[in-house]
Amino acid sequence: MNLKDIGEFGFIKRISRGCLIRPQSVIKAIGDDAAAFIPAPGEAILVTTDLLVERIHFLRDATSGFNLGYKALSVNLSDIAAMGGTAREAFISIAVPENCSIDFLEDLYKGMKRLAAEFDVNLLGGDTTRSKADLVINISVLGSAFEKEILYRNTAQHSDIICSTGFLGDSRAGLYLIINNIEANSNELKPLLDAHVIPKPYLREGRFLARQGGVHAVIDVSDGLSSDIGHIAEQSNVGIRLYSEKIPVSDNLEKFCAGFDFDPVEYALAGGEDYTLLCTISPDKVDHIAANYLKRFRNPLYQIGEITDSGKMELVLSDGQIRSFTPSGWDHFKYE
Amino acid sequence: MNLKDIGEFGFIKRISRGCLIRPQSVIKAIGDDAAAFIPAPGEAILVTTDLLVERIHFLRDATSGFNLGYKALSVNLSDIAAMGGTAREAFISIAVPENCSIDFLEDLYKGMKRLAAEFDVNLLGGDTTRSKADLVINISVLGSAFEKEILYRNTAQHSDIICSTGFLGDSRAGLYLIINNIEANSNELKPLLDAHVIPKPYLREGRFLARQGGVHAVIDVSDGLSSDIGHIAEQSNVGIRLYSEKIPVSDNLEKFCAGFDFDPVEYALAGGEDYTLLCTISPDKVDHIAANYLKRFRNPLYQIGEITDSGKMELVLSDGQIRSFTPSGWDHFKYE
Repeated sequence: MNLKDIGEFGFIKRISRGCLIRPQSVIKAIGDDAAAFIPAPGEAILVTTDLLVERIHFLRDATSGFNLGYKALSVNLSDIAAMGGTAREAFISIAVPENCSIDFLEDLYKGMKRLAAEFDVNLLGGDTTRSKADLVINISVLGSAFEKEILYRNTAQHSDIICSTGFLGDSRAGLYLIINNIEANSNELKPLLDAHVIPKPYLREGRFLARQGGVHAVIDVSDGLSSDIGHIAEQSNVGIRLYSEKIPVSDNLEKFCAGFDFDPVEYALAGGEDYTLLCTISPDKVDHIAANYLKRFRNPLYQIGEITDSGKMELVLSDGQIRSFTPSGWDHFKYE
Repeated sequence: MNLKDIGEFGFIKRISRGCLIRPQSVIKAIGDDAAAFIPAPGEAILVTTDLLVERIHFLRDATSGFNLGYKALSVNLSDIAAMGGTAREAFISIAVPENCSIDFLEDLYKGMKRLAAEFDVNLLGGDTTRSKADLVINISVLGSAFEKEILYRNTAQHSDIICSTGFLGDSRAGLYLIINNIEANSNELKPLLDAHVIPKPYLREGRFLARQGGVHAVIDVSDGLSSDIGHIAEQSNVGIRLYSEKIPVSDNLEKFCAGFDFDPVEYALAGGEDYTLLCTISPDKVDHIAANYLKRFRNPLYQIGEITDSGKMELVLSDGQIRSFTPSGWDHFKYE
């Protein structure tokens, strides 16, 4: 069976099941000119949107529908996490080429619904259309936060401690495995693959950070540590000093890098799509916040460097040498 | 100059100018992980989203960037109009193939900004990425409305009068002119072309209708009169009777149809993309509301038929004969 047989409205009916996770705030879900919901009282609305295009962001043959859907929603939830918000409503637009099976599409929505259910997010609407060549997915996610708790990129302060909520570089290693067709069944490689394929948004961690006094700037790691900390530096007009020995690298990434003769710190710096949160915290608050974080999430809040007034981006190597680094992130308009 | 030269962030800087029309409600515009704004106090949030794909919804060679941008935003604003809402914030995702010029893109944003300024809408964020083949645009628009004033499709009542806020069929005639490469410089043809290329959203009219007691169901005409009134019929579980002589057909469409030997009522019924609002109004209120509408907008609210309990879709011809009709709208998954 393909989409021709069931048509646009038949397809919408099939995927509409299981989309309402939190019906109490919803006035109108899928099926009218627009969706309608009641915003959280007194809170601001956060909005993020991501457009994923086949052959740019993913290869349809190299992913399951489930994983593609899961990750597509996850990267949006991660943006809400990086603002300190609660994710609430998601809107899915999809353009489908004729050769895309209905099984793949149902699997795609299954992946989104799984993650939506885990984080109490409604799939509240969207758009469905055809495409001549590529599968295209646009997701918009609305979240909410009290205005005074919203976390920005441009609010880092001198001598803040820079922290990461998780390991860096695993996702890039996972991408390497995919590109080079390396089986990832081992206990070491599977977590690297998963870090790339089904990343989890740090939503609860973002909310936690937003409620602490002393957390100043936050961004999620989508382009890579060097690039994303660079956004904080540029927008906050500050310098950055990172310590290579403090950058959290998983044992799995250490082993992977040892096997291929890669530098794990390079992987962490220039990688991307980790979707951990980078935050800058007042130095007199950071230990207290990190201790509470550990208690709450049973994972450390890694302290990896500090905000400086040098205006430079510096990496302190294990021998004490200081190297400057540049953002080496991804520019979407560098065609090659 | 092309996008390669200025890069993604250079492009975002260029298009960011003139995006903030109503800054007072905005907490964070373009430039962070998500946008943030203050919702209208006490009001519900409306959300609509539309995905436009090159070679499905438009031919890049056959449109100016300005007109494409204007229409892409307009069809979203029309959905907010059909809910009786006020349009507030727009989010633009765009996937750009290498052969798309920066002039075309700047013109595209110019078209969106022109319409946004006219209706007090902010362009508050989005996403920019590459594409291998087609230009893709996704627009999400957020609006607001008091919950009790929101207008739905499934609330038509028996013996309601069906009204249209404007002419029907002009847009389809405009499309005919484009497809057949017919010059549209004359005073008769130009308005038909404009109806297709730069349709105006009936936002003020939708707000007006929302505030009247007695307006029951509303939809905007995107798929065509027969199809869209069919959505109201199906979702409200009612029948429809339209009168062919009452269907508002412009003088320009009459002349166009006379010239090509087309039936203007067929054009109005099976056309699409008119973006007028169809509404159903309590029979004891309709004359009063129509009189106020005429006073306010200096255009009639056309009464074209009524809601019946027959469960049928009927068209009364000028000789009194009754013909049944079916929705002949556009199904996006009918590949051909």
